Amino acid sequence: METAWSGKQFVQALRTVGAERYHDRHPFQRRMNDGALDPHQLRGWIVNRFYYQRNIPVKDALILSKLPSQEDRRRWITRIVDHDGRAGDEGGIEAWLRLGAAAGISRERMLSQQGVEPDARAAVDSYVEFCRDRSWLEAVASSLTELFAPVLVSSRMAAIREHYPWVEPSGLEYFERRLEQAPRDVEHGLRLVVENARSRSEQEAAVAALTFKCGVLWRLLDAVDAAYPDAVHA
Amino acid sequence: METAWSGKQFVQALRTVGAERYHDRHPFQRRMNDGALDPHQLRGWIVNRFYYQRNIPVKDALILSKLPSQEDRRRWITRIVDHDGRAGDEGGIEAWLRLGAAAGISRERMLSQQGVEPDARAAVDSYVEFCRDRSWLEAVASSLTELFAPVLVSSRMAAIREHYPWVEPSGLEYFERRLEQAPRDVEHGLRLVVENARSRSEQEAAVAALTFKCGVLWRLLDAVDAAYPDAVHA
Repeated sequence: METAWSGKQFVQALRTVGAERYHDRHPFQRRMNDGALDPHQLRGWIVNRFYYQRNIPVKDALILSKLPSQEDRRRWITRIVDHDGRAGDEGGIEAWLRLGAAAGISRERMLSQQGVEPDARAAVDSYVEFCRDRSWLEAVASSLTELFAPVLVSSRMAAIREHYPWVEPSGLEYFERRLEQAPRDVEHGLRLVVENARSRSEQEAAVAALTFKCGVLWRLLDAVDAAYPDAVHA
Repeated sequence: METAWSGKQFVQALRTVGAERYHDRHPFQRRMNDGALDPHQLRGWIVNRFYYQRNIPVKDALILSKLPSQEDRRRWITRIVDHDGRAGDEGGIEAWLRLGAAAGISRERMLSQQGVEPDARAAVDSYVEFCRDRSWLEAVASSLTELFAPVLVSSRMAAIREHYPWVEPSGLEYFERRLEQAPRDVEHGLRLVVENARSRSEQEAAVAALTFKCGVLWRLLDAVDAAYPDAVHA
């Protein structure tokens, strides 16, 4: 049996997963940030990513049902409210619908799931199933892509403002919110994982869960990339 | 294929389950309301029932993960907050701990699960599994024991005040809260079930789910009854 990593080594192993596999490195995301997408391609991403957004409260409810303590549930439940909203605060799913509207995609089309690619759907569904079937520790570890999100979210917002001025800036509120929410959420998630994955095999299971989740986000972009190839210019 | 019941017939079928099988008819509950329990027996009920209380947010998170819409989740999530609490409102689990304290059971003993009978645990666990494995419609239908709860909760509170004056009245706050919460919750649950169970077979599955849930509550009292028999008086 291998020796457990120190907390510092464990966090480094988790961060290495992000450095190597987070979807900020995906060719489609790079083209988005470089301003190389046409409106059809960017809208394709918004529609497909919305299928992921809609499933966030579902996977978080599954995690909620298996967390080890009432106190942890009290913290985790804010993630569901952040996305589903509540009276006086419409929440992240509604904000993503407004991003769609700001990019010229009707609410009806967003909600219809028309245009969600089968491979994008399969990737997201596999994430929900992972959170349903795996241990709470693996499910929470899979959420730790939030460690890497703020840098990408900031660069994506800047890129949309600079390169895609036809997207109304009001549509970017979702990303603004996430810049506040993600660090708060990941502080809790990371602490839960680091404090509870004590053996090397538990630590490696957490790293594997985060690797799996990076794969989910990557496959989502693969599906968009395949469905919305660059136009061939003469 | 049998014809679907009308909404009125369906609700009547659900109410009949309660009239025939709700645990207000259980011998142990009847003795509680008649003032016939000794302190040891009443404390036994409080400790065992607490295992049920602690699992309410777990089963509600499982239901939350499978509800058909964001709007339904926004309503259902209040059940979890009602039990787990939030900043400034300690919630139903904490209120049940205070009931234990009011009856002379330490917080530590309540939280330790010492004294939870195996059959009580099995009954509650089967309920959580039911909500995990069955359709959302069946899981929601199983919550409809709330239709029958207010009458029992009221009579139980009155009985404790009258017959068990050694229980500090401040401990009854949990029941006070439920008298407000249960009618609000069941309005949503009943509407979800009645509007979505359209075929006779779906309606019968809902009735079966409610029957199962009545069995869970009944088995919990069976377990307490067996573990805390009446003292033999000479």
